[in-house]
Amino acid sequence: MLPTIARDNDTVVMIDQRKLPAQEIYVRCRTAAEVAKAIKTMVIRGAPAIGVAAALGIALGMRRSTVTGTQKFAAEFYKVCDLMAGTRPTAVNLFWAIDRMKRSFAAGVAAGESVDQLKDRLDREADQIHDEDVASCRAMGTFGAQVVPDEARILTHCNAGALATAGYGTALGVVRGAVEAGKKVAVFADETRPFLQGARLTAWELVRDGIDTTVITDNMSGALMRQGRVNFVVVGADRIAANGDTANKIGTYSVAVLAREHNVPFYVAAPLSTIDLNTPDGSGIPIEERNSREVTHVGGNQLAPEGASVWNPAFDVTPHHLIAGIITEKGIFRAPYTESLRQAFAESGV
Amino acid sequence: MLPTIARDNDTVVMIDQRKLPAQEIYVRCRTAAEVAKAIKTMVIRGAPAIGVAAALGIALGMRRSTVTGTQKFAAEFYKVCDLMAGTRPTAVNLFWAIDRMKRSFAAGVAAGESVDQLKDRLDREADQIHDEDVASCRAMGTFGAQVVPDEARILTHCNAGALATAGYGTALGVVRGAVEAGKKVAVFADETRPFLQGARLTAWELVRDGIDTTVITDNMSGALMRQGRVNFVVVGADRIAANGDTANKIGTYSVAVLAREHNVPFYVAAPLSTIDLNTPDGSGIPIEERNSREVTHVGGNQLAPEGASVWNPAFDVTPHHLIAGIITEKGIFRAPYTESLRQAFAESGV
Repeated sequence: MLPTIARDNDTVVMIDQRKLPAQEIYVRCRTAAEVAKAIKTMVIRGAPAIGVAAALGIALGMRRSTVTGTQKFAAEFYKVCDLMAGTRPTAVNLFWAIDRMKRSFAAGVAAGESVDQLKDRLDREADQIHDEDVASCRAMGTFGAQVVPDEARILTHCNAGALATAGYGTALGVVRGAVEAGKKVAVFADETRPFLQGARLTAWELVRDGIDTTVITDNMSGALMRQGRVNFVVVGADRIAANGDTANKIGTYSVAVLAREHNVPFYVAAPLSTIDLNTPDGSGIPIEERNSREVTHVGGNQLAPEGASVWNPAFDVTPHHLIAGIITEKGIFRAPYTESLRQAFAESGV
Repeated sequence: MLPTIARDNDTVVMIDQRKLPAQEIYVRCRTAAEVAKAIKTMVIRGAPAIGVAAALGIALGMRRSTVTGTQKFAAEFYKVCDLMAGTRPTAVNLFWAIDRMKRSFAAGVAAGESVDQLKDRLDREADQIHDEDVASCRAMGTFGAQVVPDEARILTHCNAGALATAGYGTALGVVRGAVEAGKKVAVFADETRPFLQGARLTAWELVRDGIDTTVITDNMSGALMRQGRVNFVVVGADRIAANGDTANKIGTYSVAVLAREHNVPFYVAAPLSTIDLNTPDGSGIPIEERNSREVTHVGGNQLAPEGASVWNPAFDVTPHHLIAGIITEKGIFRAPYTESLRQAFAESGV
């Protein structure tokens, strides 16, 4: 399985997703600040992977702490949590993972644990978040495979694969689940400008797995659907509001509109940790805007002239009425989402 | 005005559109074969500009001819016409311009003109095609300006500007016409992968003209429209079928679907030479597929891994029902297009 992120001898190691597919380079983070920087600069990206990275980063930061006394240690812990929370605003898994670390920490403090015991507890909690994420993806794969056509021509946007998670993937977990279920699968990967996660990461993952993969530019998906060459769309998510409105990589909304125009079912695959019941609808999801240089340059190549403005939102919101179903580790949820998602949380006791 | 293409001392000079905006380099073609290669490799592109280039290329080739005798000269002429016709399949202006050169040539032969007289005639015809193209664009600008909102937030796709024509532009001619009519205009330019004509050419032209320009990646147009930030869409065309179905740069169809979803009027601007009454509907328009490397690489940067397939159609077809109007040098034509376009040709006697 792809080594997206791992703990290794009091460091956190991750593959540098900015360099793929040309180079396979691993970044070794020795401090929490280095992990935070890796998230911010997109060495690692993808909502579930960001959550796992934050948890591992917090555990790493506290493992390396030299302070003595629970009180000082706690003060440092909350500072490290704030550092992680400031990296990226949209993916709610980040805040979910930080919250889990905080709850575990508070439980340890309440139980009178020593600093060393708290360090061990944070490591265990982070490892568990990591391992649960892989298990969630596999469950999504199993559930999702059931709604994938037998001869599937799947369009996906951005990368919601092993690289976007601790492993296996959410949307690509559904693809992998369908392949494991014996279905014939071909995937079209939107290249996903400006960061090119589709061309660089999704295609790289799928080719490694021997899955038939065709890269298209983002503006080709409409023409492709009009030719009847897509019969299933599945994407990941960065935050799902209580009513099912879904923030995901910029361009997802256009794909959803085009899918409905061509009667192609549009599914979202994400763990429950991506669902934010505290945000009633998509209008409440903060959308990160990133540096214009991501749009104006590819490597050293200048694509746009000086003097032109740039708009570079990293995400958009797909309204719930365009979504055929939300594939989670607890099953596939359908409209009306306000009810089905609330029910999902109630049943799973999260 | 931008020097897209010009005749200069028995050569044809064009700005190298592959190098913009980083470098302003001019390519000087000394033979018809060099002009054909420039069209094929997209030194020059844009349906009207391709037509002008083909005409100037034919005139250049025959000017340089050393054969004597009308019969041998005619044989060479038709060979040069075939060479030009083989460069690119979709833009009908290419075939329209070649046809016009052939008709002029036949008239000269019928009148018993000498080889030198035929050479002069071909030069004059090519110059006329060039000059008429600029005049057409200006007329489109005047007609089009009438339907542009007073506070216009215009989305355009690809480059249908001065660089796509002999000057002034079709879609950008409408933008320029609106500015000249005193309207407040801001333009959003889709970057238009894979060749990036929007980021590289449209933004460059508009910034030179001092027009407010924002570059977005192709997958942002849906999110932009959903925010209510676009109130007019205008694009060029490579071939318009008799029923109004319009082939234009890949991605145009997606923009048209998104425009309708958001109740934004979607206009096409093109000269009558882009309308092909011999093609009943869009299904009959040949769509060029180009090299996969255009998608997988930007400069020396590899974007997609080895082993992934690529689909790279240069154009798509927007069905007529998504088009609010077709802006031509003879006025704006509306649905039902089969009638209005036929009428346009009948009245203009083309």
